[in-house]
Amino acid sequence: MTDHTPDHIDLSHAFASRTTRMRSSEIRDFLKLVGQPGVISFAGGLPDPSLFPAAALERAAAEVLADPARRNFALQYGPTEGYRPLREWIAGYMARLGVPCTAENIIVTSGSQQAIDLLGKVFIDPGDTVLTTSPSYLGALQSLAVYEPHWATIDLPTGAISGNRVPDLAYLVPDFANPSGETVPVAQRQAVLDTGHRFDIPLVEDAAYHALRFEGDPVPPIQALDVARTGSIDRSRVIFAGTFSKTIAPGLRTGWICAAQPVIRKLVLARQASDLHGSMLDQMMVHAIASTGYDQQVAAVLPVYRQRRDLMQQALLRHMPEGVTWSLPEGGMFFWLTLPEGLDSVQLVRQSLETERIIFVPGTSFHHDGGGHRNLRLNYTLSDGPTIEDGVARLGQLISRQLETTPVEASRLVGAAAGT
Amino acid sequence: MTDHTPDHIDLSHAFASRTTRMRSSEIRDFLKLVGQPGVISFAGGLPDPSLFPAAALERAAAEVLADPARRNFALQYGPTEGYRPLREWIAGYMARLGVPCTAENIIVTSGSQQAIDLLGKVFIDPGDTVLTTSPSYLGALQSLAVYEPHWATIDLPTGAISGNRVPDLAYLVPDFANPSGETVPVAQRQAVLDTGHRFDIPLVEDAAYHALRFEGDPVPPIQALDVARTGSIDRSRVIFAGTFSKTIAPGLRTGWICAAQPVIRKLVLARQASDLHGSMLDQMMVHAIASTGYDQQVAAVLPVYRQRRDLMQQALLRHMPEGVTWSLPEGGMFFWLTLPEGLDSVQLVRQSLETERIIFVPGTSFHHDGGGHRNLRLNYTLSDGPTIEDGVARLGQLISRQLETTPVEASRLVGAAAGT
Repeated sequence: MTDHTPDHIDLSHAFASRTTRMRSSEIRDFLKLVGQPGVISFAGGLPDPSLFPAAALERAAAEVLADPARRNFALQYGPTEGYRPLREWIAGYMARLGVPCTAENIIVTSGSQQAIDLLGKVFIDPGDTVLTTSPSYLGALQSLAVYEPHWATIDLPTGAISGNRVPDLAYLVPDFANPSGETVPVAQRQAVLDTGHRFDIPLVEDAAYHALRFEGDPVPPIQALDVARTGSIDRSRVIFAGTFSKTIAPGLRTGWICAAQPVIRKLVLARQASDLHGSMLDQMMVHAIASTGYDQQVAAVLPVYRQRRDLMQQALLRHMPEGVTWSLPEGGMFFWLTLPEGLDSVQLVRQSLETERIIFVPGTSFHHDGGGHRNLRLNYTLSDGPTIEDGVARLGQLISRQLETTPVEASRLVGAAAGT
Repeated sequence: MTDHTPDHIDLSHAFASRTTRMRSSEIRDFLKLVGQPGVISFAGGLPDPSLFPAAALERAAAEVLADPARRNFALQYGPTEGYRPLREWIAGYMARLGVPCTAENIIVTSGSQQAIDLLGKVFIDPGDTVLTTSPSYLGALQSLAVYEPHWATIDLPTGAISGNRVPDLAYLVPDFANPSGETVPVAQRQAVLDTGHRFDIPLVEDAAYHALRFEGDPVPPIQALDVARTGSIDRSRVIFAGTFSKTIAPGLRTGWICAAQPVIRKLVLARQASDLHGSMLDQMMVHAIASTGYDQQVAAVLPVYRQRRDLMQQALLRHMPEGVTWSLPEGGMFFWLTLPEGLDSVQLVRQSLETERIIFVPGTSFHHDGGGHRNLRLNYTLSDGPTIEDGVARLGQLISRQLETTPVEASRLVGAAAGT
């Protein structure tokens, strides 16, 4: 460990055991390369900055800061639960999604990442079992891992659970899932609910991409299905995590949790102990956008991302060699590719970065069970059309070259090692 | 439990055991009363909003949001470590305090409350022993308790440690301590360092009030003393937590940790899993104020708070009955009062709220060991002179009335029950 040269104090004995579960996200590491000349990033789930509602945010900030009463409110210590008008707006939005509720069912969080962390803090004891898909969202795996759970895999569409562990919590991204791009249909959502009721556990529904539907009929949130069964948000075991990061702007760090009041009250205590409350100015700016034109903002974002999805689909069809497979996502930000047997996405991203200056996230990052060596996730929301075409073409050529130079024997070995 | 009526789902079996350690802060609960007509608050450590650098913050926000490049940076996902120019400014500030360091020794946090939470996450295993003073900062007791430590008390000035536990981490507020108002002199800081070296543990120095010195010679941070001993911040076991909440504005949620690089790297991983990063706009606004006029901002705040401290001191001398004692703080935001034997601060605050509409924080909130029944903390930074005079006068009269009506026998009983 270079940390422990005589130049640095060695406090490694003092670190908590949970820190051994903390690892840096490849996405966060790659993020440092974004914007460097010549680098094409298909890595992060980054929105296109040109779609941020810049003028409206500028106006909102100016209006808050020019009015003494609102300014003093924005700059002083504020409520842990969040800015009340924003909580009320979110409650109205949840009602539109089929979840009638009040501001008492809402806590504002610093993005949905903090929502996931607070849920881990409130629900996971070391040794508890968290049920999720494989692949699942990297950031959730990282946040929840800190609370030292075991993992169990739920297979969709069968609903089968791996191993013999009894789950204590389930975590899902049902809409245009990160990373798989897939959307869980209603029948499977009902089956997930059945599983939740059978084990009497909380179900976390991470709806980060819910608003980014390009086509097809909307599927009701799992929480809405549970409210329809139980009659009330306060009787629901589903905990809905939403965010403004993908629709308004991630730098404002504003997301939310909608849940039964006893759950919200615990989360408020957990957040009080975590950081007291979120930025008041950011919440007031988000509220200004949401309350005056959330639908228009989403409507401005959707066609751009839809067009980029179409361009990436066309580029993939044109440039990917035979044996590379994927499905067309109906929304969200990602394609999820499967490589032919014998190729390894971790090796691919290393070479892609070195020779092509193209970055993406290898599938291994999204698996708690060691899988994903043949998968990669490609983001299409940050890049313009020519960049998508250029990047996918070069990535396709790189994969083709790797296929040509991968001897059949080595291919079998790698396939076996990856458990395929 | 009213939560578990048939109207609410009962997920209490699903909550993690650490949630039993979460309790609501009296300060946060009282905060909801601040600003209500007729309520005088001596409760929170709230800065006076009239001292926020409003015009400069308004200008800073406008400048960031009007410039496309800076605006896109502010609104996009950002670095977990924090806004680099702010980290560099903080490194320069730390050097002025006697801690030469670089931006690599700094992580920006969402206020010093998040700093404390991240330190708990990184350092405390369940059953570890945290050494602190009694009383100590309520918010730290709450944040760290979530990681399920045992507590041990270090007595200052003797340096004696209660019980037989070997400490794993120490936490102190050495400047105008919250709540006691006391400042730890250099010789005792060296003794605390000796203790840290003897047990080979990290020492957390919460310097939230450090900049608010009204008079007397500055005392070097414990971290500066350790750097002088070991020769480098990277060899120091002291972890310094600072904040802009008391000098610029708490609603912007911006604080920092300065520490050896191996510690900072762990904290970055912990923050990545907690909330990815803080509000970029807030950090850029804080940087604008700090880099163009931090000293002027502090110089604008100090005389106002000093005058209010003096007014509260005069009011206490005039209105408190014999037997109530306190020391004059040289800075910070609080007086720490000790009541005569037989009185109880928890009972006092209930009556004070009911009959006088005056709130403060009873000493019990600041004790991990059940003490503090005869103490109360009074904040003087939020109230103007007439309010301080009126509030202290009525509080003094209430205490006098309680003293008159407290039968000697009951007084002895309460004293015995409180272990005094």
